[in-house]
Amino acid sequence: MPLFTGVVPPVVTPLNKDFSVDYPSFTRTLENLIDGGVHGLFVLGSTSEVIFHEDAARRAIIDHAVKVNNGRLPIFVGTIDPTTERVINHTKTAKAAGADAVVVTAPFYTRTSQPEIVDHFRYIKDAVDIPIIAYDIPVCVHVKLERKTTVTLAKEGAIAGVKDSSGDDGNLRYVLQDMAGDPNFFGMTGSEIMVDTALAMGSHGVVPGLANVDPHGYVKLWNCVQKGDFAGAKAEQERLLRLFEMVWISLGRTSAGSAGVGAFKTAMRSLGIIKTNTMALPQRSLNDEEAAKIDAILRSVGLLG
Amino acid sequence: MPLFTGVVPPVVTPLNKDFSVDYPSFTRTLENLIDGGVHGLFVLGSTSEVIFHEDAARRAIIDHAVKVNNGRLPIFVGTIDPTTERVINHTKTAKAAGADAVVVTAPFYTRTSQPEIVDHFRYIKDAVDIPIIAYDIPVCVHVKLERKTTVTLAKEGAIAGVKDSSGDDGNLRYVLQDMAGDPNFFGMTGSEIMVDTALAMGSHGVVPGLANVDPHGYVKLWNCVQKGDFAGAKAEQERLLRLFEMVWISLGRTSAGSAGVGAFKTAMRSLGIIKTNTMALPQRSLNDEEAAKIDAILRSVGLLG
Amino acid sequence: MPLFTGVVPPVVTPLNKDFSVDYPSFTRTLENLIDGGVHGLFVLGSTSEVIFHEDAARRAIIDHAVKVNNGRLPIFVGTIDPTTERVINHTKTAKAAGADAVVVTAPFYTRTSQPEIVDHFRYIKDAVDIPIIAYDIPVCVHVKLERKTTVTLAKEGAIAGVKDSSGDDGNLRYVLQDMAGDPNFFGMTGSEIMVDTALAMGSHGVVPGLANVDPHGYVKLWNCVQKGDFAGAKAEQERLLRLFEMVWISLGRTSAGSAGVGAFKTAMRSLGIIKTNTMALPQRSLNDEEAAKIDAILRSVGLLG
Amino acid sequence: MPLFTGVVPPVVTPLNKDFSVDYPSFTRTLENLIDGGVHGLFVLGSTSEVIFHEDAARRAIIDHAVKVNNGRLPIFVGTIDPTTERVINHTKTAKAAGADAVVVTAPFYTRTSQPEIVDHFRYIKDAVDIPIIAYDIPVCVHVKLERKTTVTLAKEGAIAGVKDSSGDDGNLRYVLQDMAGDPNFFGMTGSEIMVDTALAMGSHGVVPGLANVDPHGYVKLWNCVQKGDFAGAKAEQERLLRLFEMVWISLGRTSAGSAGVGAFKTAMRSLGIIKTNTMALPQRSLNDEEAAKIDAILRSVGLLG
Repeated sequence: MPLFTGVVPPVVTPLNKDFSVDYPSFTRTLENLIDGGVHGLFVLGSTSEVIFHEDAARRAIIDHAVKVNNGRLPIFVGTIDPTTERVINHTKTAKAAGADAVVVTAPFYTRTSQPEIVDHFRYIKDAVDIPIIAYDIPVCVHVKLERKTTVTLAKEGAIAGVKDSSGDDGNLRYVLQDMAGDPNFFGMTGSEIMVDTALAMGSHGVVPGLANVDPHGYVKLWNCVQKGDFAGAKAEQERLLRLFEMVWISLGRTSAGSAGVGAFKTAMRSLGIIKTNTMALPQRSLNDEEAAKIDAILRSVGLLG
Repeated sequence: MPLFTGVVPPVVTPLNKDFSVDYPSFTRTLENLIDGGVHGLFVLGSTSEVIFHEDAARRAIIDHAVKVNNGRLPIFVGTIDPTTERVINHTKTAKAAGADAVVVTAPFYTRTSQPEIVDHFRYIKDAVDIPIIAYDIPVCVHVKLERKTTVTLAKEGAIAGVKDSSGDDGNLRYVLQDMAGDPNFFGMTGSEIMVDTALAMGSHGVVPGLANVDPHGYVKLWNCVQKGDFAGAKAEQERLLRLFEMVWISLGRTSAGSAGVGAFKTAMRSLGIIKTNTMALPQRSLNDEEAAKIDAILRSVGLLG
Repeated sequence: MPLFTGVVPPVVTPLNKDFSVDYPSFTRTLENLIDGGVHGLFVLGSTSEVIFHEDAARRAIIDHAVKVNNGRLPIFVGTIDPTTERVINHTKTAKAAGADAVVVTAPFYTRTSQPEIVDHFRYIKDAVDIPIIAYDIPVCVHVKLERKTTVTLAKEGAIAGVKDSSGDDGNLRYVLQDMAGDPNFFGMTGSEIMVDTALAMGSHGVVPGLANVDPHGYVKLWNCVQKGDFAGAKAEQERLLRLFEMVWISLGRTSAGSAGVGAFKTAMRSLGIIKTNTMALPQRSLNDEEAAKIDAILRSVGLLG
Repeated sequence: MPLFTGVVPPVVTPLNKDFSVDYPSFTRTLENLIDGGVHGLFVLGSTSEVIFHEDAARRAIIDHAVKVNNGRLPIFVGTIDPTTERVINHTKTAKAAGADAVVVTAPFYTRTSQPEIVDHFRYIKDAVDIPIIAYDIPVCVHVKLERKTTVTLAKEGAIAGVKDSSGDDGNLRYVLQDMAGDPNFFGMTGSEIMVDTALAMGSHGVVPGLANVDPHGYVKLWNCVQKGDFAGAKAEQERLLRLFEMVWISLGRTSAGSAGVGAFKTAMRSLGIIKTNTMALPQRSLNDEEAAKIDAILRSVGLLG
């Protein structure tokens, strides 16, 4: 059995209006996910605005999540920064703080290559003894983890699994096929909208940012697939597609980054989970007009009365 | 007159084989540039492998450069990290350490937009009182500083100048034309190979990584242009084009990042300026065969006996 | 019911060594598909090397396909060229020759925009009365048919369906959801490797180049899905994934274009369907060493004894 | 001496409102260029909307240009279509019609590679005995003519020169340096805004679409450079930068393609050279509001009273 399976949402990091972390809201965010039945928690992912947080803030976020979780679920920690030594240091911190696994991207800012990416993961594995999940997210790091790169690392045990946010499900499928003989390896999709199909093709889990808004939806979808009820999974996925429309509402006025996580935060505020929809700078927070549109979406899928 | 003009090389950061900074070599690197007649020093640029260094190492690098320089030349410091708060913190450090200006890129990893980029620079300007040079480097941050973005920031005084490593000299030319009425604003090219033409069209300086190998060449080129000797500038530029061929030697075996700065380090080692050609991880250092090819280039342009 | 559903392969255009169309081989190619149970034929698609053929050759290819088919299956004809008037002329020819529908891409070579793409399809619809299938193939035309573009055209009846070769199944899913109320609209995937999942999410058909090599495989997959046997569909899809590995064999020595269609032709030659694996110029044909590797793949999936 | 040097504008193809070629306007367009002192004429370039014209229309356009020119200037003809055989056929037509050279791009629509691009040019050279100018225009064909590709073709005599519209002047500079020993080879820039610098670095000519609006400007710029008056060339270039601002006026409402050539046509209409500013479909023509802005630009640089 793979080390981790199921619904493992990247956990939104709520902020106060002064951009500090709003810990009471963070507690509610974590409890909302656990109550919703998810199978793991991924703190300091892209949806968590990891890249906006300094080292000390990151450590405090992990500590808080570990404390609130109190051993109930496995915790993944994103140790995301541009280069090897910096990721190793984050990874040591995450391990010391109680992470069950770390999530690592390819290097960025620096112009890299697939062999140097392979080395990057090997150096981290050599430096810290903790399961590493390769995070394939070209939209942020501007390089794809190629099939050969992922499979090389998986076969030698440098990575325990992959989280694929590349949108290239065909490539993930080949990775899963290449690793079919290894019962420990897992592949999770980062998609919010192709989850039923990703699971049907053999993915072991899903890491949907949208689960911060509706954890029950993704857990229901997961449970349908486990029972072989693909029609039920499809129906739930289609409901979630309508919910996911929120991520384009502020696009144009804001960047795509602000529009996506900003929509999740705005919806969570409407649902009473968090207090503000403040985004880390220089991102823009959604305004009242945009929030009203999000409320309309929440109502249309039955999440808001 | 603009605040800064002339040849302002990004200063290579020499490493020991254990990846710590090799300070005696760093001293020689700085002295070699100052002896070569350059007009400013840019520490912690891309060529300096800034992105590979942790906060403490960055501070030590700035301190060393300031001490060696001892007020002889203006010092730019790259305060390069993905998001606003992190850049502000680096900028405060740089100012405290004695930087004359900081060099700041657009946000990266996060998906950003031109209005959010404008805000990014404004927030930094509001937070720290030091001249800011906008660093346009799409090959690293995967977004272009559009003409309107740069000119908006320049006109309101949020930036003092721009360093253009985008390769889009036409856009730089428009920025220079838009800012022609402002005697303080400056635009520098980050190109190694289009310097005579960039200066001819009105650029105020050049920031060539290759000057670590041959500062005299770029100073000679600059002096030719100052005297109106464009034929002399062109001849020197063409010699430097042949020298610059070194940056493609290891390409394929290494990434483009490793190939470029790695070639500079390898050449500097051959010239006795630094001790190793070690690159920060996960980059690959050039091997002996590649070093031999670089020596051949150095000989062909008269830098090696 | 949508106008067309099922397996509609783009038909390979076999060539003689002098680059003329090899009509006896073309006949066998068509019969092999019809015998294999496919539900339609798509001549002059990208896999057919449409872009390499002059007007007269295109007309002869359509005429031959129509004659061989003799009304047994619906025939789609790709009327693919860079700009509106040229596509209209191809479309008139296709209609006159007996096409049941035409397949049209966004304009290319010219720098276009989504509103101009919408106009492009409208002009063609106004000029020729024949069902138009929008062909979303950014890898060739370097622009994506955005969701809003496709849905606008579908809702006003300018297009009857979409063939999606963009790899962006999430976008296709939204298009299908937007058009769910229209029983006539159809969406087909151009993927060879995500067919079971594309059909499970509601796609109405599949246009796999690989079906030229193994029509029975795709028909079996389709039939499994029709019966609700998703496990059977998945197993067949996984066999076809192994077969599809052929498309990367010559990559590096040849372009991706030559590598893909060239592999299909090479496999079809081994299976006795066509006489040569000649590719239209300037593409490169696969060599003997590459052909041997393809034979090994054919054997591994049971297609070659 | 290279075969061709100087200012060789791509000639706008004026259209009637019914999209047929407006030959009286075309005559005036040609005479305006010849009167302006240009050194050659490039018909059926991108600026000529070549890609929108069918074979017969292309032939008529060449014939008209040859007749009007009546041997006064050399004529380049763009033989631009996606693949080898089609380009060969256009090239035969162009030669028969009296072209002095043809201008050929890399293949497009098909996914190609540098070795296949090299072959493409070789096949055309073998098929038709006429000087071939390689046209490097990645914005249209989505592939760059790499330095090695261009130099390989130049050294073996398959191409007589290159027209570089890639914006990568550094690469052009290396090509010029690699070919410095060959007095026959020429490199021209397709830029409108970096002409003084391109000529200063050794380019042999310029192919500016904007010369349709202001041939005297580019001829003046060229003459300044020939006399060594770089300050005069720079001043003229800066005036032309202001004129070139017209190409962004309709951007957003129209595509970049429509915005650029559409602006030239609109300005030419205001100057009395052509009758309509009609663009070939699906492009959009500029509207009255946009035309008024273009007139303001024409006035600001002294072209309109």
